[in-house]
Amino acid sequence: MPAHFSRRALLGGGAAAAGVAGAFVAGRATEESHAAAATPSAPASYPFRGAHQSGITTPAQDRLHFAAFDVITDDRDDLVELLQKWTDAAERMMAGDPAGTVGPVGGPSNLPPDDTGEAIGLPASRLTITFGFGPSLFRTDDGSDRFGLADRQPAALRTLPHFPADNLDPARSYGDLCIQACADDPQVAVHAIRNLARIGFGTVSVRYSQLGFGRTSTTSVDQSTPRNLFGFKDGTMNIKAEETDDVSEHVWVASGDDPKAEWLAGGSYLVARRFGMTIEVWDRQPLGDQEAFVGRTKDSGAPLSGGGEFTAPDFDMPGSNDTTIIAPDAHVRLVHPDFNDGVRMLRRGYNFVDGTNPLGGLDAGLFFLAFVRNPDTHFIPIQTKMAANDALMEYLKVNGSALFAVPPGARDGEYVGQALFA
Amino acid sequence: MPAHFSRRALLGGGAAAAGVAGAFVAGRATEESHAAAATPSAPASYPFRGAHQSGITTPAQDRLHFAAFDVITDDRDDLVELLQKWTDAAERMMAGDPAGTVGPVGGPSNLPPDDTGEAIGLPASRLTITFGFGPSLFRTDDGSDRFGLADRQPAALRTLPHFPADNLDPARSYGDLCIQACADDPQVAVHAIRNLARIGFGTVSVRYSQLGFGRTSTTSVDQSTPRNLFGFKDGTMNIKAEETDDVSEHVWVASGDDPKAEWLAGGSYLVARRFGMTIEVWDRQPLGDQEAFVGRTKDSGAPLSGGGEFTAPDFDMPGSNDTTIIAPDAHVRLVHPDFNDGVRMLRRGYNFVDGTNPLGGLDAGLFFLAFVRNPDTHFIPIQTKMAANDALMEYLKVNGSALFAVPPGARDGEYVGQALFA
Repeated sequence: MPAHFSRRALLGGGAAAAGVAGAFVAGRATEESHAAAATPSAPASYPFRGAHQSGITTPAQDRLHFAAFDVITDDRDDLVELLQKWTDAAERMMAGDPAGTVGPVGGPSNLPPDDTGEAIGLPASRLTITFGFGPSLFRTDDGSDRFGLADRQPAALRTLPHFPADNLDPARSYGDLCIQACADDPQVAVHAIRNLARIGFGTVSVRYSQLGFGRTSTTSVDQSTPRNLFGFKDGTMNIKAEETDDVSEHVWVASGDDPKAEWLAGGSYLVARRFGMTIEVWDRQPLGDQEAFVGRTKDSGAPLSGGGEFTAPDFDMPGSNDTTIIAPDAHVRLVHPDFNDGVRMLRRGYNFVDGTNPLGGLDAGLFFLAFVRNPDTHFIPIQTKMAANDALMEYLKVNGSALFAVPPGARDGEYVGQALFA
Repeated sequence: MPAHFSRRALLGGGAAAAGVAGAFVAGRATEESHAAAATPSAPASYPFRGAHQSGITTPAQDRLHFAAFDVITDDRDDLVELLQKWTDAAERMMAGDPAGTVGPVGGPSNLPPDDTGEAIGLPASRLTITFGFGPSLFRTDDGSDRFGLADRQPAALRTLPHFPADNLDPARSYGDLCIQACADDPQVAVHAIRNLARIGFGTVSVRYSQLGFGRTSTTSVDQSTPRNLFGFKDGTMNIKAEETDDVSEHVWVASGDDPKAEWLAGGSYLVARRFGMTIEVWDRQPLGDQEAFVGRTKDSGAPLSGGGEFTAPDFDMPGSNDTTIIAPDAHVRLVHPDFNDGVRMLRRGYNFVDGTNPLGGLDAGLFFLAFVRNPDTHFIPIQTKMAANDALMEYLKVNGSALFAVPPGARDGEYVGQALFA
């Protein structure tokens, strides 16, 4: 049994079957990667409160439930009250407690429970709950400042521009508020979003909701790199939580970044984009072409210029046909910091399959989530370049897109986003 | 730490954090149920071949990917060739191997790989792959016997009748073929369906596809009872694999059951129904009403007549208001074998959330899967009664429905369903 054999690899077998489970190493496994493995050293639950919200630099959990909401009231007090209630419920659920103080079964029989019950008996499952505010919370499309927040709207919090491959479905895009729930158990993530939506009944409605079944990002050096539905490792170059200087430089909004939005200091921006993959077309591409599009090998994830997964790519190494081994339009080149003013993103994307597409294939892809200090410098330029030039774009269709400002963490006694309303 | 503390409960924490994980017991956990727990004694992988197909009496895995297909050729040889290819690929993938002999990265760079690669490094994850044949494979709606199978169509393999709560979407219903993939890792289940669909390109198209994130059934006495999105334990009365007499009586088609379809002996029928739950309405019902609708307590799952989860309900026990404690329209009463000629089903359902509904709520519910010896005796009568009388039906909307004949297992050298074509 290899030294790094993960607990997840044993999940199907139990300790007693470890020898049997180990047999797979001679089968499909061609390496010691365990894509979905939990982080061995991670705690069983995370605190809701702190300088930053959880679910950003937290080691990426295996499962996602993301939801965007429309606020259906113009009453600022109702909005604040909702954020207070959401703060309380999120803090409770992240600790493994029910959404409300009464709980799913503890109350009188003539009242609805304040927790829906499907997580009874389940542990916290490393749940994180992360809240964001969309541009439309500050100013509606017709310019209305319905909550008196317009003068505090961050300059960078605008509807993202149209990118060449965008074919956006408004019903999968935008949103006044968002909640990202990540956990190792999908039932726990679903329970969290479902109860927060329940608490918001009458104040918000769910605009869209997205489950992700497998993480495609690595946000801790302890995690192995998972694979996306192109079959390639994804997230090799991601910012890791341990890279604290890069996190400070590229993820957290700093005090002074935006004089109108000092309330956002310690927060971040969340870009959410639903990348549908034309996987049936992709699957008919030769292996060599797939690797050329990505710029890495499919097996180990090493750059085509050689080495291992974490070897720096040599973008100048000559290849055949008078070009470089890593092609000019290879994904790894176009998104590399060396060609993007040194910017990096902290990505937390998830694989999804949502039934079928009209062509008789799977509606599958990558729900891209990235936290950046400023979308104007850290997302829009790189996405513009990628959409125009990246060889992978032929196999990607973006049908959902949103941008949110993610306030800093709530301190003791505060509700999330309180500084915005103070 | 309780004696039955599951490995899954530790998943978020790792062995080193077991003490921390144990803290949840004082939090949300009100019992020792671990809904999503894997079966401790289950092996790491299952064999594809045997007297019966896997994925029926196999201990229910945590995650589901189900797909129904339309056959887009009228060539019987093409259909047979597909079943041969599917058999080979399913046997390989269940063992933790790639879908094809070359694998995702082992082939020449000028050819597409014969495996899509997203399961590289992942173990078998207790994957099971179960194939079924819909009525339309035997005879199309216009009566065409396109594959020369009409005289072998089982008498009970017909489009299910319309039930009162049905509001079927044809795009989520029916199908010539189906594949149920269950695994403990959703990436492995998705990989299986995706590769089988890839292999079928040109012969079949995906009609619909459904992910289930959490099992709601218990098919082994070693498993704890999970919860559905009503928040109640589901599957307490389910047939367990260990109840071999009941499995023989209620699940497997026996030789002689249907003279026209002797090929189905050792197989079963699979009923697949997509039950959307109006969870936002449900969540506003008082706890006492929820329990009255179900006929069990929400906490332990005990019948309202008393005892524990597995205590037999006392349907005659008087309650208030001149009726019984377990109401006449309680779900547990209507579906109980005592009131249904003793019939039982083997259910293998899964919770799902598929985005949003038009009312601003979650499109959530239960993807009902049940294996029965004969739908005419084991499903249609009970579903008719339930649809007409069950208190739960007010909170359920059925928008997908299908019936499949599930051939017996493939023996060495056979392909799945071979006896049908012999």
